[in-house]
Amino acid sequence: MEAKKAKDSLVIMNELVMPNDTNQYDNLMGGRLMYWMDIAAALSSMKHSGRPTVTVSVDNLSFKKPINRGYVIQIHAQITRAFKSSMEVHLKVFGENPVEKVRYQSNEAFYTFVALDENKRPIAVPQVTPETEEEIRLFEESATRRQIRLILSGKTQTQNASEELKSFFSKDQ
Amino acid sequence: MEAKKAKDSLVIMNELVMPNDTNQYDNLMGGRLMYWMDIAAALSSMKHSGRPTVTVSVDNLSFKKPINRGYVIQIHAQITRAFKSSMEVHLKVFGENPVEKVRYQSNEAFYTFVALDENKRPIAVPQVTPETEEEIRLFEESATRRQIRLILSGKTQTQNASEELKSFFSKDQ
Amino acid sequence: MEAKKAKDSLVIMNELVMPNDTNQYDNLMGGRLMYWMDIAAALSSMKHSGRPTVTVSVDNLSFKKPINRGYVIQIHAQITRAFKSSMEVHLKVFGENPVEKVRYQSNEAFYTFVALDENKRPIAVPQVTPETEEEIRLFEESATRRQIRLILSGKTQTQNASEELKSFFSKDQ
Amino acid sequence: MEAKKAKDSLVIMNELVMPNDTNQYDNLMGGRLMYWMDIAAALSSMKHSGRPTVTVSVDNLSFKKPINRGYVIQIHAQITRAFKSSMEVHLKVFGENPVEKVRYQSNEAFYTFVALDENKRPIAVPQVTPETEEEIRLFEESATRRQIRLILSGKTQTQNASEELKSFFSKDQ
Amino acid sequence: MEAKKAKDSLVIMNELVMPNDTNQYDNLMGGRLMYWMDIAAALSSMKHSGRPTVTVSVDNLSFKKPINRGYVIQIHAQITRAFKSSMEVHLKVFGENPVEKVRYQSNEAFYTFVALDENKRPIAVPQVTPETEEEIRLFEESATRRQIRLILSGKTQTQNASEELKSFFSKDQ
Amino acid sequence: MEAKKAKDSLVIMNELVMPNDTNQYDNLMGGRLMYWMDIAAALSSMKHSGRPTVTVSVDNLSFKKPINRGYVIQIHAQITRAFKSSMEVHLKVFGENPVEKVRYQSNEAFYTFVALDENKRPIAVPQVTPETEEEIRLFEESATRRQIRLILSGKTQTQNASEELKSFFSKDQ
Repeated sequence: MEAKKAKDSLVIMNELVMPNDTNQYDNLMGGRLMYWMDIAAALSSMKHSGRPTVTVSVDNLSFKKPINRGYVIQIHAQITRAFKSSMEVHLKVFGENPVEKVRYQSNEAFYTFVALDENKRPIAVPQVTPETEEEIRLFEESATRRQIRLILSGKTQTQNASEELKSFFSKDQ
Repeated sequence: MEAKKAKDSLVIMNELVMPNDTNQYDNLMGGRLMYWMDIAAALSSMKHSGRPTVTVSVDNLSFKKPINRGYVIQIHAQITRAFKSSMEVHLKVFGENPVEKVRYQSNEAFYTFVALDENKRPIAVPQVTPETEEEIRLFEESATRRQIRLILSGKTQTQNASEELKSFFSKDQ
Repeated sequence: MEAKKAKDSLVIMNELVMPNDTNQYDNLMGGRLMYWMDIAAALSSMKHSGRPTVTVSVDNLSFKKPINRGYVIQIHAQITRAFKSSMEVHLKVFGENPVEKVRYQSNEAFYTFVALDENKRPIAVPQVTPETEEEIRLFEESATRRQIRLILSGKTQTQNASEELKSFFSKDQ
Repeated sequence: MEAKKAKDSLVIMNELVMPNDTNQYDNLMGGRLMYWMDIAAALSSMKHSGRPTVTVSVDNLSFKKPINRGYVIQIHAQITRAFKSSMEVHLKVFGENPVEKVRYQSNEAFYTFVALDENKRPIAVPQVTPETEEEIRLFEESATRRQIRLILSGKTQTQNASEELKSFFSKDQ
Repeated sequence: MEAKKAKDSLVIMNELVMPNDTNQYDNLMGGRLMYWMDIAAALSSMKHSGRPTVTVSVDNLSFKKPINRGYVIQIHAQITRAFKSSMEVHLKVFGENPVEKVRYQSNEAFYTFVALDENKRPIAVPQVTPETEEEIRLFEESATRRQIRLILSGKTQTQNASEELKSFFSKDQ
Repeated sequence: MEAKKAKDSLVIMNELVMPNDTNQYDNLMGGRLMYWMDIAAALSSMKHSGRPTVTVSVDNLSFKKPINRGYVIQIHAQITRAFKSSMEVHLKVFGENPVEKVRYQSNEAFYTFVALDENKRPIAVPQVTPETEEEIRLFEESATRRQIRLILSGKTQTQNASEELKSFFSKDQ
């Protein structure tokens, strides 16, 4: 299976914040944003793998600036790296008020998806070729994020963590 | 402000998995589940604080078993601990097929919410009194989860991590 | 088929009243509430019977206090009694404003569901064992409600009504 | 206030049964139908009264034939009679499969709405002038339905029931 | 195949403008109205043809008066003429504020649908018999609209346009 | 007011075709696509004008290839030209099956929006500077489309049509 360029998996999604997407302060609800991010990430992973995919995990996510009713949400989703059948998707979320010309990054996140075969079992996916500086950095850091993910979800023991990760959390600067 | 019992913030939500909630395999989409979890957690934090609340973060989340169309999702949301204006909400998600009498835990998660005053600024919330063994364990472990959260979201430096957390990631078992 | 406890069919549902659920006064529309009640009752009857079920009737329903946008609806659904393939579900609906800590019962209702086999034909369901005082009262009164239901839907003639029902409507107190 | 013709309040609604409206048998869910009926009845009562209105009660309702995905629901809503600030709305529901040219009446129901003034308090509405034979019959029978409604919702005592109602339930035919 | 009367295909749809249907000015969004018109036109064409149908084109559409949240949209859809497997549907859209008793025509449009057989291929449909003066006018003018449609969608060359159409656009009045 | 580049108004939208978006053949309904196109075009015109905008017209639209459930819709919306307060938006719609790697253009359309001031009255918008060959062609042809639009919506008489338009429809090739 031939490797594919990271940028070929880019998916851009624009959504208008409608009344039903907001809470009592007319701010976008966190859950609605996670829902849209999940669809954008699913599309990106389907584009990379050419397979149906399902969400397997979402990394720590924090919400910074509130986004109001009538604002536009722009989501950029792109694969950073593939591990056998799983793919890490990097998401950047922007809030935009086209009338007041305000635009800011409101969020950054990593979702992981796995590709499935006809019997709904994991199937291998193409490797990712990063090209830009940012793509290369995200590719390289993805191994550490994966270790944190496995530890936090209890799928691996901390003693199996790499030296880098250990030192990340214990460094005596 | 008087402390409130953890169990008084319990919110139970049942949702039926409808066609539009599913992907091409008729499995519940991860994003839809995160959306429902966000509403359940918002309700629990509003119940505890008596204030409107907004999502500030979601901890690492992993999806285990697929949940099919026609299944029932049951979500239990309860506050574990309060930190000034923020509250950590513990969520347990169960998938249930009432016809085949299958029921299993599909997910566990921690969402953090902050209470807001009339001017949409953070406002102090009551402390939490844990009572059961599980509530006490969740209360005690919440400090570690909070440190991981702050480190992963870049809000604190790893050298500020507690000794416990450092040893958690670097223990030489 | 072994009888099952009434309380084993309890389903609790919490819903947040969103903008699209409300009328021009920002009050919850009656029809949206009936829709949620139908889902809660369907889940309870599926839980009791272990079968797919369909709504066959809804008893007289009245709406008391208006429920505003941003309020939480809590619905408790529990089987009162089973008649061959049909089950009567008792619903209690509470409106709650978590911020102003107001909570009140807004509604009470009885929905009837029937369980279906693989060919979509009615199939027998387990009997119900009431335990608490309220469960026993609801169990006993369900026969009268059923007669009223059959008369009002034209499925039986009034001369077939029981003496109790006749005296209920004609008593000369 | 001048009386208005019953037929001037007629509202016809057509809805297509979409996947999300159906249960696991691809049949229209009872709650979705009650939701559409509520909107049709609200429109009819707003048309008659020229005021915003809210649902106050729904009479016993039974579901006869299942309605499939892809079918068309046609709802006819028309006021039968007005009582001070409340209006009784008669609903006829038809299921239609335009492809197989099957059309049948699936339901009949009575919803009651009340008109509100600027302060959300009940306000008087025009009387209804029935013209056709069916309109006159529905007008006349509405007093009995109203009594049953008041008794079943506990708003009046059975000893206040009219002689007609008493004899309806106790007649010794 | 016997011709069918134009009026037998009439479909009336009433929709309430809910918060999520509106833009930041609380006005009905154009796209939501086109969505409802498409469903009404689909139902009308299914009624005429007795077949599943799909949208093939929509003629130039302009939006006149804004329609507010809480207004009622009434759509009348009726077949004007059939061409082998395609049907032209005429839509009239009315906006209505039942409280202020304002009602006005907001829109007029022509959608074209094609009927499909079991293999999703176009299938012949009955001819249309227009009866009223308006039906006859719409029937006759439909040939010109069809030519404009074919030219504008690039399916025919302008030199194939009829003399009438040519003179419509080039007349030297 | 300074002119703005056409490409600065580009909005890309990706939508997943969910069950509720489809008809009985599991194909995307035309009305749902028009709804999404309207949102994409509204976002593009808001981006160009820095004002809230409303749909004023949609040009002839035809649907070519059916799009299935599970496919991805990609919409590109970009301003072609501005006329005082109105803007013409060019939309290109692509259907994509990421699994079978099929991608095709399914649609092309022109929507017209007008920008509004605080009192909901039309307000002047910046001119458009086209740069690429395609942008220049679309800019130049927009005058002809505008004439056709005005004629078809009855806002101008055919004798006012330009010589180009007259010859377009009457050319004797």
